[in-house]
Amino acid sequence: MIPIDEMATFCKKKGFVYPSAEIYNGISGFFDFGALGVELKNNIKQAWWQFTVRSRDNVVGQDGSIITNPKVWKASGHVDNFADLILTTKKSRTKLRADHFIEDELKIPADGLSAKDIQELIDTNKLTYKGEEFEEIRDFNLMFQTNVGASNDKEATAYLRPETCQSIFPNFRLIQEHNRLKVPFGIAQIGKAFRNEISPRDFLFRSREFEQMELEFFTDPQEKTCPALTDVHKNTTFQFLSAQEQDAGTNKMETVSIQKLLDKEKLTEWHAYWLSEYYNWYTKTLSIKSENLRIREHVKTELSHYSSATFDIDYNFPFGFKEVHGSANRGSFDLSQHEKESKTNMTYFDEAEQRKYIPSVIEPSQGLDRLFLLMLYDAYDDDNERGNIVLKLTKSVVPIQCAVFPLLGKEHLMAKATEIYKDLQQEFTCTFDKSGSIGRRYARQDELGTPFCITVDFDTLENDDVTIRDRDSTKQVRVPVAELKERLRNLLKENIEFS
Amino acid sequence: MIPIDEMATFCKKKGFVYPSAEIYNGISGFFDFGALGVELKNNIKQAWWQFTVRSRDNVVGQDGSIITNPKVWKASGHVDNFADLILTTKKSRTKLRADHFIEDELKIPADGLSAKDIQELIDTNKLTYKGEEFEEIRDFNLMFQTNVGASNDKEATAYLRPETCQSIFPNFRLIQEHNRLKVPFGIAQIGKAFRNEISPRDFLFRSREFEQMELEFFTDPQEKTCPALTDVHKNTTFQFLSAQEQDAGTNKMETVSIQKLLDKEKLTEWHAYWLSEYYNWYTKTLSIKSENLRIREHVKTELSHYSSATFDIDYNFPFGFKEVHGSANRGSFDLSQHEKESKTNMTYFDEAEQRKYIPSVIEPSQGLDRLFLLMLYDAYDDDNERGNIVLKLTKSVVPIQCAVFPLLGKEHLMAKATEIYKDLQQEFTCTFDKSGSIGRRYARQDELGTPFCITVDFDTLENDDVTIRDRDSTKQVRVPVAELKERLRNLLKENIEFS
Repeated sequence: MIPIDEMATFCKKKGFVYPSAEIYNGISGFFDFGALGVELKNNIKQAWWQFTVRSRDNVVGQDGSIITNPKVWKASGHVDNFADLILTTKKSRTKLRADHFIEDELKIPADGLSAKDIQELIDTNKLTYKGEEFEEIRDFNLMFQTNVGASNDKEATAYLRPETCQSIFPNFRLIQEHNRLKVPFGIAQIGKAFRNEISPRDFLFRSREFEQMELEFFTDPQEKTCPALTDVHKNTTFQFLSAQEQDAGTNKMETVSIQKLLDKEKLTEWHAYWLSEYYNWYTKTLSIKSENLRIREHVKTELSHYSSATFDIDYNFPFGFKEVHGSANRGSFDLSQHEKESKTNMTYFDEAEQRKYIPSVIEPSQGLDRLFLLMLYDAYDDDNERGNIVLKLTKSVVPIQCAVFPLLGKEHLMAKATEIYKDLQQEFTCTFDKSGSIGRRYARQDELGTPFCITVDFDTLENDDVTIRDRDSTKQVRVPVAELKERLRNLLKENIEFS
Repeated sequence: MIPIDEMATFCKKKGFVYPSAEIYNGISGFFDFGALGVELKNNIKQAWWQFTVRSRDNVVGQDGSIITNPKVWKASGHVDNFADLILTTKKSRTKLRADHFIEDELKIPADGLSAKDIQELIDTNKLTYKGEEFEEIRDFNLMFQTNVGASNDKEATAYLRPETCQSIFPNFRLIQEHNRLKVPFGIAQIGKAFRNEISPRDFLFRSREFEQMELEFFTDPQEKTCPALTDVHKNTTFQFLSAQEQDAGTNKMETVSIQKLLDKEKLTEWHAYWLSEYYNWYTKTLSIKSENLRIREHVKTELSHYSSATFDIDYNFPFGFKEVHGSANRGSFDLSQHEKESKTNMTYFDEAEQRKYIPSVIEPSQGLDRLFLLMLYDAYDDDNERGNIVLKLTKSVVPIQCAVFPLLGKEHLMAKATEIYKDLQQEFTCTFDKSGSIGRRYARQDELGTPFCITVDFDTLENDDVTIRDRDSTKQVRVPVAELKERLRNLLKENIEFS
């Protein structure tokens, strides 16, 4: 697995991701997606939206503003509590994120440690940063602030949303009523969020501007069963790191099923349903290798104030297993808080049961940029035999679906190749390449993840057929031009053997 | 045409758009898109992306960050010049946008007037606001400011981008090289932008957070012809308001063609090409009524500092003809500025001509929220005969493509209707409605713009066929269930007579 810096270099070189406005040396924690990157990102978004919203009867979408009424962030607890501990060195006034500093120096997990804990660790271990001692540890709120309107007074302070879900909760009743939804139902959203990270790092993994894809799924707190939970869900099996193993410091992973977690009462049925749904979406729809994934149970001390149980789906990055998907049982925390702060009734009336309640929320939360990074890592294959990198992205999200090559230097093949290209372009994302040897052109497309390359050669003019070459196996087949689109359609749709 | 406030109410009632976090009384100039709105907005985005990027060989996309290096905004002139004039009343310190105040009070165009001009108009006409006099007119920069990183010093000041195009220019050479693009070529982007409007108004028309869809198209400044310009472009005809008519104060529109504007040397051939492309996209792909559109030439005094010629596509809203699309010839202004400020070479080397130059830029710039609003207005039809509103949106962007209704109260039809619904859902955006009379259900879908309603009745069980009902004509046809998907596919694709 290549180090993260090399991945950033690869992404830049191939036009996936650049530092934001690189000609000005960028700005730490912000990135621009290039021509290939924006297509891959959009395809991942569409796959998620299709899976989460369009294929379901009981989930609708929304798109909330990034800046909203600041009372939202008062109610959610972010104004008072959304802070990291910060260490400032005495002389150069360098600022460090305290838990990361402890993790780096002492090689122990430090997430959730209090200022007092960290101060003790610093004192006991006589920790300094480049020889400098630290000022008193302080809180640093991670929300970006701005002023809305022409006055500069405190009233006008607003925040860039640090998470997308709080754009959903205030709209819960409006959306439920206008779409005549009945609990259980969900509201999904894709959008940007911003966190003023003290020290952004690991490329797209911890950036200051990022996108989230979140579903808030509202359930009846008295209803303990989930009718949607099938054997497929229950039998979903994965590497698992339990809270117990973490508390004991042994951190041994085991292979378990959703059923086993249910037996141990680690989660509710609806929570089990959604955790399994997305784990299977990862491994089946996105074809992510299950050996690179694990599900990790949050330990008590790290559980957020709003959550009674959280499970992360982690990916094995070069910097270790890290969260890419969070699955939290938020209970009625958010709706209750918004009811209190806004003085608006947030209860749902269940007509069938003639009962009023505030629903309990299951939240599958997906970092889009992290998933983007994960997918590049999982697809990245430095193929020594071929002598080039092959990006084995799953076919449903590739930026370019096919490439058309006229045989080198044969200008009279150009017209035919152009005709085929123009036709394919009506339906597929398609590129045309006439420069360099065919081998060089294959390599170029391998590195962009293009699954199929179509070569137009002398025989094409004779027999009206072309060669399709498969990215993963490098196998080639001969296909009549008349059947080309139908063949590509099938090859792109199904996980079938190339032949 | 309904007033803008009624449109906002309609949008809220139908789940298209809400004030952001309405339970907290919203926040002026910010909106949340609901379940229907997000689908319509996404469909418009995809149609634009397909038209601008995917269907072309010489345009690629990107997705830049909202917060970027602040030097970008120094180079572009926004830090120094992106300001509106603001009037502050002496007693209550109410803040008003000066040009809007003059327009409202004196019913004259005030865009581009200097502080001195406005002061004179106030003095001459003894203007006050609710009896209050004004303090001295001052500049108000419209960029939202924030601080990046843990320090609070000036160095860390950054801005939310007030336009998306400045995310593109700094990447010009990276993207050109990595995608091996040759001038003429374009870079396109869809994304959020933010302007701290002094007084947001007219619902989505002038909000503080909005989305832009922009194309920066790079051309050779020495090349005066555009090979892509066809007779279709030259013969494109529209209502036109010339600079002369505006300068003369007569404001008479005339019907002209692109060819006529070319003859008068009002624009370059590439500029003509893109203006015509998007005008035709509006009227043909989006089916916007041409009688509601006009193209307006900017007068000299309102031309931006970067532009040598700008044409707006305006729509006839209830508050008058207003800009929805801007088409500017930005010349080499932006690339030159970024070259100067970043000290990075921004020239392009033309291999064929062995010549180096900074390209000249044509910019078609589209406000997504304004287009969204325009499309609702253009589609909105309060049909007295039917007794309900019909949203006659073009079929390619509708939030819901079809609805399935089992005949009222007939529980044994439910299984069949559900089966048909589940099948359609695989391919179409589809809704299921079993409550109320069929007439009531038709009305409900009319108001959401759903083009086709499918009724499952007794005959369906006998003959395995259903009724498809057309939104616009209310005509109904009987179709075998086996042919339903193919029929819908065609009905949704083509502008054919319903039968």
